[in-house]
Amino acid sequence: MLYVVGIGAGSREGMTIAAQQAIERSALIVGYTKYVELVRAVFPEKEFASTGMKQERERVEFALREAADKVVSLVCSGDPQLYGMAGLAFELSVNYPDTEIEVVAGVSAAFSGGAVLGSPLTHDFAVISLSDLLTPMDKIRKRLECAADCDMTIVLYNPSSKNRADYLRNACDIALKYRSGDTVCGYVRNIGRDGQESRVLTLAELRDTQVDMFTTVFIGNSETKVIGGKMVTPRGYGNV
Amino acid sequence: MLYVVGIGAGSREGMTIAAQQAIERSALIVGYTKYVELVRAVFPEKEFASTGMKQERERVEFALREAADKVVSLVCSGDPQLYGMAGLAFELSVNYPDTEIEVVAGVSAAFSGGAVLGSPLTHDFAVISLSDLLTPMDKIRKRLECAADCDMTIVLYNPSSKNRADYLRNACDIALKYRSGDTVCGYVRNIGRDGQESRVLTLAELRDTQVDMFTTVFIGNSETKVIGGKMVTPRGYGNV
Repeated sequence: MLYVVGIGAGSREGMTIAAQQAIERSALIVGYTKYVELVRAVFPEKEFASTGMKQERERVEFALREAADKVVSLVCSGDPQLYGMAGLAFELSVNYPDTEIEVVAGVSAAFSGGAVLGSPLTHDFAVISLSDLLTPMDKIRKRLECAADCDMTIVLYNPSSKNRADYLRNACDIALKYRSGDTVCGYVRNIGRDGQESRVLTLAELRDTQVDMFTTVFIGNSETKVIGGKMVTPRGYGNV
Repeated sequence: MLYVVGIGAGSREGMTIAAQQAIERSALIVGYTKYVELVRAVFPEKEFASTGMKQERERVEFALREAADKVVSLVCSGDPQLYGMAGLAFELSVNYPDTEIEVVAGVSAAFSGGAVLGSPLTHDFAVISLSDLLTPMDKIRKRLECAADCDMTIVLYNPSSKNRADYLRNACDIALKYRSGDTVCGYVRNIGRDGQESRVLTLAELRDTQVDMFTTVFIGNSETKVIGGKMVTPRGYGNV
């Protein structure tokens, strides 16, 4: 039995009760080193196996193999679907037809980060990763164009890394084709962890800001405003 | 002190520990009748106040007023931002400047429903509500066009109601302009509650399916496939 478990942003409080229960029922917890450390802090008595960052396939294969005769939790930060391991677990499960897989949903950074900023995700939104490791840059650009054009709030995952220092600037330039430089934006770094930082700023300011890979970025829609320092998208449109 | 709390899909297991703690700390729990009943089942000893479906403004005003001198939780299903009360709480808070508001994120139906279907949300996606109560239909249509055009997985909230029986069909017709009728889709009804039902089907089949307002609908991207009966979007693009 394999649980693919979302642990939320990283603190115990951000986990669901179902995630806790899945981990408690498991004989082995598998995950990327950093997330395994977060879980170990909450469940120190458990057995763990961790792998490095780019070893997703090996990690999932290992978890599926171990799950043949025991209960295993494969832990992911946020939700296990979104840029996580759940899809890969199903893809590789064709080689392990007898292993049952259950996905245990978690709070993704769009929502945990949004809650820190206020309520940027009150209305329709799009989530786009700026990482072109597994997705062609043309596809990412097209998605940014479309999401900006139809006035959805946009959440950017993986907004930056050592080799992609200008990706956030390029994404903002696409948004600026459709939205004013005064559009309310925000970002949150280290959501729910030590050193959490957040800032509400304009799209023009965001364009000239450097963020790191532990940051989630929010570009508001045309109605998003600042209320008491918070980033707030209204539910409805004033012109309805 | 006002907590605006997402309780997830409805079962106790779907709540985060932070949501539980906020409710435990509160002297009064306020919400829409149906969600208050779900919370009351878990915390029977608490004091509750519930209001009907279209009384959002009254409900939030009441919660803000009560929160002036005690700890109040305003509970929402799923996440409190998305089509929830958090945005309205900040908007109305200008009249209650001394009341602190904290948003407690929850697992929205996109993620809890996605976990039931498999892993439809592995990659970039858009969430769009088909309700035109507070949003002009032109804007909804434009968003459907854009999201379909750029090959994002699409999650539809409020796909139907008594007066909008053909809205899902119209949304599918927009998607069919950009995607094959064989595109993998899915829906989940009563997520995490008694009578939960789900189905994986094609976009052509979805077009001719009636769903109700308790249903969340998923339209896969061009790479989404069916694996062992589950709806699975791969992480990467084969052509990278």
